[in-house]
Amino acid sequence: MKADLLYEGKAKWVYQTTDKPGHLVLEYKNDATAFNGEKKEVYTGKGRLNNAISAYIFNALNEQGIQTHFVEKLSETEQLVRQTEIIPLEVVVRNVAAGSITRRLGIETDTPFSPALVELFYKDDDLGDPLINDAHALFLNKVTKSELQEIKAKALEINQQLTKLFEAINLKLVDFKLEFGRLASGCIVLSDEISPDTCRLWDTTTNENLDKDVFRQGTGDLLEVYQKLFDRLEART
Amino acid sequence: MKADLLYEGKAKWVYQTTDKPGHLVLEYKNDATAFNGEKKEVYTGKGRLNNAISAYIFNALNEQGIQTHFVEKLSETEQLVRQTEIIPLEVVVRNVAAGSITRRLGIETDTPFSPALVELFYKDDDLGDPLINDAHALFLNKVTKSELQEIKAKALEINQQLTKLFEAINLKLVDFKLEFGRLASGCIVLSDEISPDTCRLWDTTTNENLDKDVFRQGTGDLLEVYQKLFDRLEART
Repeated sequence: MKADLLYEGKAKWVYQTTDKPGHLVLEYKNDATAFNGEKKEVYTGKGRLNNAISAYIFNALNEQGIQTHFVEKLSETEQLVRQTEIIPLEVVVRNVAAGSITRRLGIETDTPFSPALVELFYKDDDLGDPLINDAHALFLNKVTKSELQEIKAKALEINQQLTKLFEAINLKLVDFKLEFGRLASGCIVLSDEISPDTCRLWDTTTNENLDKDVFRQGTGDLLEVYQKLFDRLEART
Repeated sequence: MKADLLYEGKAKWVYQTTDKPGHLVLEYKNDATAFNGEKKEVYTGKGRLNNAISAYIFNALNEQGIQTHFVEKLSETEQLVRQTEIIPLEVVVRNVAAGSITRRLGIETDTPFSPALVELFYKDDDLGDPLINDAHALFLNKVTKSELQEIKAKALEINQQLTKLFEAINLKLVDFKLEFGRLASGCIVLSDEISPDTCRLWDTTTNENLDKDVFRQGTGDLLEVYQKLFDRLEART
């Protein structure tokens, strides 16, 4: 089913398919990277876990009527998705302050954002994925004004759904990163992945991190934590 | 007329007045600073020139019906302004790319922005005046949503007026920084200064910089360049 490698990212390979026009295969790597690739480790089993977690979450979003690129899980580390033209914006939604924003704005970790805060970063490794504003996004010509409005509205809707989903397994959704893509029709759908690589999730009772911060900060075993998250999701159904 | 020192900035002192309630005296310093204060020099005559240039420009804006804090020039280095509560946002308007934005977005110097690009920076020296988006500005609670809209609209209107003013003296207005303040009534007016410290101005014919970039980059004599700008403004009337 997998044909030529189209693209290699830090966490996934993207392949064309032999028999599914308009579709791609994502294969999840075992690599963990942080700080724009400066910190890097390999964890056997990470690809399997992120594939399973992201498939679980995209299925849940699809069931809630949110259009995504996700079609189905193909194997332990692979999933089938609809082909999109990726919009090179990282859309970050924050419910409470953690990570870079605390240093950027001089605010305490856990400061609540109400309404949830939406940030755009220009997806460009050479530039270090800089924070941009709406005017920059329009100038960079990667998105139209109405697409930008749609993307922000979708990001906030996804935030509501994910917040509920994680609350049900005793986790606080602190923040997360989304990417969107355009189908051949021009429709914008949620793309990329949603996993502990792209979310901050804190145990509601203990404040324990169930996300990549254990790798960034060296405060826990990545595999153990990702497995724990997957087990909680599985136990939910 | 000058009473207690209220505030000392990098380029100005701000004094209360003995006889003008609701007003302040700004006194321009001879200090030139760049890179968030890391580069610093004293140029005797700079305060006089910036006071004269800013007074000239604010007078021109007042004549065009743009509400500003400026009342009158009091002496070589002092001016009388209406007292405002400064909104801690640096509002940058860019007509073409120069300086930090070329590195931030990976674009060529002189790339045109059409429409003009408006950026907000959070005025906080300790944080290095970070770029922020509208949602950050609202979260930081320094401005309401309607005030933010008003500030951006005013910034673009001022851009139109200044572009015309500088075109008349053969200068291209590349970018500039504005600050706004609230009068006791709550009305928002243009505050701070407009000078070669806060604008990039390029000679339309020779591309020569008539602004603080000669100091930042060490490419010319600051006093000579500021004097040249003032002479051109004076010759315009």
